[in-house]
Amino acid sequence: MRRIRLTLDYIGTSYAGWQIQPGKDTIEGRVEQALFRLTGEEIKVVASGRTDAGVHALEQVAHFDTGTDFDLRAYTNGINVFLPPDIRVTDARVVPDTFHARFDAKRKTYEYRFYVSKVDRAVLYNRAHRLQSMPDLTALNEAAALFVGEHDFAAFMSSGSDVKTTVRTVYSALFAAQSESEFTFEVSANGFLYNMVRKMVGALIKISENKLTSADISRALADPASTNLPYVAPACGLYLKRVEYEN
Amino acid sequence: MRRIRLTLDYIGTSYAGWQIQPGKDTIEGRVEQALFRLTGEEIKVVASGRTDAGVHALEQVAHFDTGTDFDLRAYTNGINVFLPPDIRVTDARVVPDTFHARFDAKRKTYEYRFYVSKVDRAVLYNRAHRLQSMPDLTALNEAAALFVGEHDFAAFMSSGSDVKTTVRTVYSALFAAQSESEFTFEVSANGFLYNMVRKMVGALIKISENKLTSADISRALADPASTNLPYVAPACGLYLKRVEYEN
Repeated sequence: MRRIRLTLDYIGTSYAGWQIQPGKDTIEGRVEQALFRLTGEEIKVVASGRTDAGVHALEQVAHFDTGTDFDLRAYTNGINVFLPPDIRVTDARVVPDTFHARFDAKRKTYEYRFYVSKVDRAVLYNRAHRLQSMPDLTALNEAAALFVGEHDFAAFMSSGSDVKTTVRTVYSALFAAQSESEFTFEVSANGFLYNMVRKMVGALIKISENKLTSADISRALADPASTNLPYVAPACGLYLKRVEYEN
Repeated sequence: MRRIRLTLDYIGTSYAGWQIQPGKDTIEGRVEQALFRLTGEEIKVVASGRTDAGVHALEQVAHFDTGTDFDLRAYTNGINVFLPPDIRVTDARVVPDTFHARFDAKRKTYEYRFYVSKVDRAVLYNRAHRLQSMPDLTALNEAAALFVGEHDFAAFMSSGSDVKTTVRTVYSALFAAQSESEFTFEVSANGFLYNMVRKMVGALIKISENKLTSADISRALADPASTNLPYVAPACGLYLKRVEYEN
């Protein structure tokens, strides 16, 4: 047996998220099906984390064990033959049996893509979230900076997940303009709670609409037990951008 | 009657190009169908030019005549209700009866998108053309500069179109890096022949692969009658980016 580490990208629009669920079309399900066709083995694939329905990945990392000893290209080009074009394996390498895509992830980065337009745009359909007007990115960056550091993010977690601690360390949280009508929010942390990025973005959008203030974010971080911010930004703008491991 | 000028964007992947053809799903067909549902009129829509099957538009311009006098938003949001999400009308305005989306276009700009990767990427599927390695953009820009100016582009036209002259003026032709693995080629001209951008890009790709030289482009421009460059870059990387009119 050997352990293979995969890098994948995908457009999540057509899928019920990463995690396999009965009767649902999932990315994990597609990858495991493709691996079965390639290897004849029933293989469980472990990702760095689940992504929700409609969320995309520029770079997801996953691992699996196999008794096959194909040339490594079989686990990229070979798997891709059995995958739909909106899911691609871009890299495969052999890793020690001790490598674990989820437990060993030291830092994850998400990108949230926005565009500004009075009407929907076809070329960004399901690829970015539309706002009516360009917000003040300097003001938003001041609010986003409140997330940086070690905080209890319980107010930025949707229920339905079972975690030991809701404390996470955010390394950076930054808005950046891409063009006159497009911008991104990029956030890196040692880990994210369920819906944490979408709730952070949801709160920041409300700030841009003057429906929340920076003080509401400060309060939610200082006193998470008594606050829950209900604003969840749409899945279509969210991309898992990078997962980093030691060495 | 009044004449309306529309701005549209679309992802061309699912369509047999702009121009209506019997039994084919076309962008023009979809827009005229949507206008019929909105107005009850059988309306012919005239675009700045056809785009081929699989080619996208960030900004296509078209016009039509209608006896309806709806609020202008009806011709954006209203049409969009009857259009699939990969075709969107982003702007509508009343123009003089003399305005013609094709004949009055003074300058058109196309963008061709590339990415560099050993394997296909899901997030760029049908949105950009993949190259195996990053070409020397400085060298490509030197070759692209040969296109700038007034030339007979007959060697860069696919057969099947009937034009009075194959002389066009190219205003600019430039490669630009977007990131470590993505770059674009942008070309502006007073007009383009059938497949002209894709044949220009096809020749430039061959130069990047050392299968053609700048001298071949010079020769094709100087002596178009005796040359035809057969390389046509894939449609999926091509975007109609801008159409400009006087005032």
